[in-house]
Amino acid sequence: MAYDRDNPFAKILRGELPAHKVLEDDHTLAFMDIMPQTRGHTLVIPKAEAETIFELDPQALTATVLSTRRVALGVRAAFKPAGMMIGQLNGALAGQTVFHLHFHVIPRYEQGGFQFHGQPLADPELLAEHAAAIRAHLPA
Amino acid sequence: MAYDRDNPFAKILRGELPAHKVLEDDHTLAFMDIMPQTRGHTLVIPKAEAETIFELDPQALTATVLSTRRVALGVRAAFKPAGMMIGQLNGALAGQTVFHLHFHVIPRYEQGGFQFHGQPLADPELLAEHAAAIRAHLPA
Repeated sequence: MAYDRDNPFAKILRGELPAHKVLEDDHTLAFMDIMPQTRGHTLVIPKAEAETIFELDPQALTATVLSTRRVALGVRAAFKPAGMMIGQLNGALAGQTVFHLHFHVIPRYEQGGFQFHGQPLADPELLAEHAAAIRAHLPA
Repeated sequence: MAYDRDNPFAKILRGELPAHKVLEDDHTLAFMDIMPQTRGHTLVIPKAEAETIFELDPQALTATVLSTRRVALGVRAAFKPAGMMIGQLNGALAGQTVFHLHFHVIPRYEQGGFQFHGQPLADPELLAEHAAAIRAHLPA
């Protein structure tokens, strides 16, 4: 499938949609998931246009996973979860709902079932607080 | 928690347990999950001792994710799934069952629920066939 430049993450990258940003560098952007599975659920995306891991070049993938590691460390320091899921879904049948590649960073606090995007929209003020907490705890 | 050198993946790395290998290079190893969620479920691990993403250094993480990308391309070419999940679980509460960092590469063929490690042990001969099919389709 051809990359759709009107997907929500492309709009966030162009500044056409807002986001609670956690980290930004030359090649990547991280921001709060607006339908968080858990407190602190953050997304990390490459700035390069890629629908899935199959289209992303190795250099951009490397930058994205290194930002994902930084975000995971920041989320852990900010929220002290018991565990952390990293997930990257390719294709609607695998649970992908926005067709710009993204890594989910999902802290886990307790036992129980889990589904990607089974939650409602979160309070924007709460997401802003969470983003600030994670930014304050990002490693160098 | 200190890294346990008697975990099953450490034993696979030392040749003390068998594995249906898909890819091996200086820094990483990939092999079939013996309790596959779906046909072609493959694991990618660093050779470095690390329980979670928090202990793995950025260079080893980079090598692991680049091998994960190669494996995902090989699995896609071998089995033609409709989608592909990449997952990396940190901590028992996040679903981690072997305490050596690993990336799951899980092809998805149809709609439906999904749980990490909800499946029984697979037939070793079938896993050997799958490993051979993926090896034959790995990109350069």
